[in-house]
Amino acid sequence: MLAELAAEAGIAFNGPNPWDIQVHDERVFTQILSRGSLGFGEAYINGQWSCQRLDELFTRLMRVDADTRVVGAGRARLMFEVARHRLFNLQSNGRAFQVGKQHYDIGNDVFEAMLDPSMTYSCAYWAHADDLAKAQLDKLDMICRKLELRADESLLDIGCGWGGLARHAAENYGVQVTGITVSVEQQAKASDICKGLPVTIELKDYRAIEGHFDKVVSVGMFEHVGPKNYPDFFMAVGHAIKDDGLFLLHTIGSHATQGQTDKWIDKYIFPNGKLPSARELTSALENHFLIEDWHNFGTDYDRTLMSWWRNFDIAWDTLKPKYGDRFYRMWHYYLMCCAGFFRSRQGQLWQLVLSKRCRTGPYRSIR
Amino acid sequence: MLAELAAEAGIAFNGPNPWDIQVHDERVFTQILSRGSLGFGEAYINGQWSCQRLDELFTRLMRVDADTRVVGAGRARLMFEVARHRLFNLQSNGRAFQVGKQHYDIGNDVFEAMLDPSMTYSCAYWAHADDLAKAQLDKLDMICRKLELRADESLLDIGCGWGGLARHAAENYGVQVTGITVSVEQQAKASDICKGLPVTIELKDYRAIEGHFDKVVSVGMFEHVGPKNYPDFFMAVGHAIKDDGLFLLHTIGSHATQGQTDKWIDKYIFPNGKLPSARELTSALENHFLIEDWHNFGTDYDRTLMSWWRNFDIAWDTLKPKYGDRFYRMWHYYLMCCAGFFRSRQGQLWQLVLSKRCRTGPYRSIR
Repeated sequence: MLAELAAEAGIAFNGPNPWDIQVHDERVFTQILSRGSLGFGEAYINGQWSCQRLDELFTRLMRVDADTRVVGAGRARLMFEVARHRLFNLQSNGRAFQVGKQHYDIGNDVFEAMLDPSMTYSCAYWAHADDLAKAQLDKLDMICRKLELRADESLLDIGCGWGGLARHAAENYGVQVTGITVSVEQQAKASDICKGLPVTIELKDYRAIEGHFDKVVSVGMFEHVGPKNYPDFFMAVGHAIKDDGLFLLHTIGSHATQGQTDKWIDKYIFPNGKLPSARELTSALENHFLIEDWHNFGTDYDRTLMSWWRNFDIAWDTLKPKYGDRFYRMWHYYLMCCAGFFRSRQGQLWQLVLSKRCRTGPYRSIR
Repeated sequence: MLAELAAEAGIAFNGPNPWDIQVHDERVFTQILSRGSLGFGEAYINGQWSCQRLDELFTRLMRVDADTRVVGAGRARLMFEVARHRLFNLQSNGRAFQVGKQHYDIGNDVFEAMLDPSMTYSCAYWAHADDLAKAQLDKLDMICRKLELRADESLLDIGCGWGGLARHAAENYGVQVTGITVSVEQQAKASDICKGLPVTIELKDYRAIEGHFDKVVSVGMFEHVGPKNYPDFFMAVGHAIKDDGLFLLHTIGSHATQGQTDKWIDKYIFPNGKLPSARELTSALENHFLIEDWHNFGTDYDRTLMSWWRNFDIAWDTLKPKYGDRFYRMWHYYLMCCAGFFRSRQGQLWQLVLSKRCRTGPYRSIR
């Protein structure tokens, strides 16, 4: 079964290609068979196997959906779950905090080395950019233009992170921004970053939103909401937004509707986390919003992750004494697994512009 | 109930506003109550009531979803069904032909008077246009550019109508076009229109498609496919398209998932016809295609229909002797009901660009 999957994916054990798996410890095989892709990931971090091009290995595995087909205890996308809970946690809500500790224990120096100067930890937009800083700036600005922000309008940013978007919108479009986050640390940092601008950062959950806003935006937060809560989420945004307002939803999506998240994963790894499929999203949206525009730039997340990896790798010499080789392998595994997720087209990056039915006049989007 | 609905919609019987209903025959009320919006439509055509701004009347009625709430025999969107089977029939497939007769009995002079010179009978794109001819040309060209047509590529046009798109693509992008239609008359006309170009028009259903194509397009045909057949449709296109191809689907959509189409309607009015909701579309797509791009320009159909009405109305003096006042009222009702459908945002006009998961590289759409 393992050999068949590998062959189908075009991967060999100890083969000559850069994406082949070089086995340094034969126990890898039993680890995969007994613990699935979680065992596969842990074995990598332990140095029991290596691979010259992890990104290409993961792309090949995910193209044949190997992550959902591995036998034994390792069913239900375990390989990616390991990486995924890392990708989401820094933008997390309360429940994700339960497992976020590991991620927060990592020093800021890692993120400062890896991210662009604006410290944006979500997918960049590469259509008109050649470097990460411009691609992140383009993303922020595209969001503002899609939302047709006008001076003195009010903007609600649900899951405002470190405040990069709030700052960009306030500085460049003259809007009044209310950012909400469930992280005390993010609230402090975002408030600091937006000092002197008409930006308020509040510590609250989307269910506690008050007031009415011309525009609403949410970047990289919906991944934490969970299908059971999608109706509540859209209802909350529906109440918060004025009749002729616009809502931009930026979220990672899945190419297909997955079954129930594994209970073990839900409890120990990634509580309440689930990537929406287009079907789940449209089902939850239907009674609340019209879809004015749906932009998929998932392949740009591949490029974003590869840029983050290059930045991290270049800075490694200065980080190494503090973090050590085991961390290096873990970080490599995390970023390359996510890159493969998007390169294989399992992963999508969606920006939807949504409106209420009572909004009049045409909406014209941009790219 | 009737009075409540009218009040909720902001409409008065014999009121002073241009969208108010002027009753000329009191039997209108019993006709609506006994035969729903079908009775409403027939009473209009019979001259039993009138309205200065039918488009605004329908917009107001549909904003409160009056068409689905009318009591008695007239449940299930009858008001719009009357108009809808007209809007679709000229682009129809075999089964719609069963009820298409009425429409085909209408002379070409009506369509020549109403449509733009390219005789395009689907939603125009008004983002960069001020007149109908340019808006239709922009629509055709936007489709070609979204599909990234390159010289010598093969293009399959499912439901090619009178061949306007096939001609534009072959003339301006140097592609080889195979158009399919289930209408003998359309096959003859489209073949004539595309004479001298690398275009073949075949008489067949989407289930009989043969060969592999670089790109596939379908404009205004999906409305006839019916939810039961969506999986077959997407499977057929999936087989017809090369691995790195693109599929552009242009269809009217509904703001919400409707229940089963009324059996009476299905049998007598609009066999197998149903507008997809976003939920139905994404559910059917999921196992066949990725959504690269989703463009909604439903408000442009309002403007298109109003242009058609103006053209028809201007030409009426020359058409009147042949068609008579009853036809005028029927045509007015049809176009204004459809305009109201889109202006109320019940109706959407969607262009989706779809790809197979094995396609590599980013897709960049346009607007």
